[in-house]
Amino acid sequence: MAGPGTDPNAAGLVFWFDFASSYSYLSAMRIEAAARKADVAIVWRPFLLGPIFNAQGWATSPFNLYPAKGAYMWRDLERRCGARGLPLKRPPGFPQNGLRAARIALAASETPQLAAFCRAVFRAGFAETRDIAEPATLEWALEQAKLPKTLLDAADDPERKAELRAIGDEAAARGLFGAPSFTVGDELFWGDDRLEEALAWARDAK
Amino acid sequence: MAGPGTDPNAAGLVFWFDFASSYSYLSAMRIEAAARKADVAIVWRPFLLGPIFNAQGWATSPFNLYPAKGAYMWRDLERRCGARGLPLKRPPGFPQNGLRAARIALAASETPQLAAFCRAVFRAGFAETRDIAEPATLEWALEQAKLPKTLLDAADDPERKAELRAIGDEAAARGLFGAPSFTVGDELFWGDDRLEEALAWARDAK
Repeated sequence: MAGPGTDPNAAGLVFWFDFASSYSYLSAMRIEAAARKADVAIVWRPFLLGPIFNAQGWATSPFNLYPAKGAYMWRDLERRCGARGLPLKRPPGFPQNGLRAARIALAASETPQLAAFCRAVFRAGFAETRDIAEPATLEWALEQAKLPKTLLDAADDPERKAELRAIGDEAAARGLFGAPSFTVGDELFWGDDRLEEALAWARDAK
Repeated sequence: MAGPGTDPNAAGLVFWFDFASSYSYLSAMRIEAAARKADVAIVWRPFLLGPIFNAQGWATSPFNLYPAKGAYMWRDLERRCGARGLPLKRPPGFPQNGLRAARIALAASETPQLAAFCRAVFRAGFAETRDIAEPATLEWALEQAKLPKTLLDAADDPERKAELRAIGDEAAARGLFGAPSFTVGDELFWGDDRLEEALAWARDAK
């Protein structure tokens, strides 16, 4: 399951995100700059919220199950994107299926273009109303990140499937229940609102 | 249902809280200072989360229904209280029953000691492991706020019961789904993390 920079027990901060998660979009677009400022190393760690939600008895996102919560989320996201100058267009269906994108991100995790690929997928889903499960979208995201198209094959690679499942098991074992989440050793922080606190924790843990 | 300062459509910010809500404790202890700094008038508006949760199919707090979420909440609260120098002791049972305290707060809403009473109830529940449904605790909170003990009777006053129910209906109609919440006109903000943004919104709406 390894590869450099993927050990969640290493120093630094692990950024747990789901490509379909609206608040993960907020964090993905700012974490690199925030981490540089805090002088903290980041590990991008894609995982799937679906199995976590299922284990809580939810067949879909709580934002769909609980309409008041969902309506608020979109308005809150709109306000925050507005304040940060981030584009936002409601995706075609929510939540999208981020499974293939996550497997490709794992395959790209040993390249310096991982963050650029992830940002491109988030932009496709939350700013350009593209279906992030579509090969054409993923190919576009690879191009944006200057990564080879051959990485598309990772979406069906049994090793990446197993790796993503193992990450999901680890997320559950660590008590993750939503995204984005940030871990520093065993310390868990949930939500884009906790990014600064998580980075400070990682800095102090050095 | 009125009384000065209780019209949620008036200028300023309405602070919707439940005495049993852990994150409401965080906001209650800092909202007066934050509002003064932002030059925004605050209306303290107690309501009950119970009926809101019930309408979502939850028989108790989601922090109890979803253990990972609950474990995280207590750790997060501990970190934030630590950072703010706020005392924190897990209450005897969670969530507590804030019904009587809420009715008394409504009766005190036309006095300048309302905020002091609310803070005392939160302190009792989250820093002193007291049962906030107990008359002795409520009497203590009234004393702390220099309010007459006779206000205890409000806990069983049919008018206050009706008023609290009407506030609950309004909360649901406004799309509230958790506490603390802040409203500025029709604009809704959820969570202690949004207090600053809500105050800025209220200031700009002037």
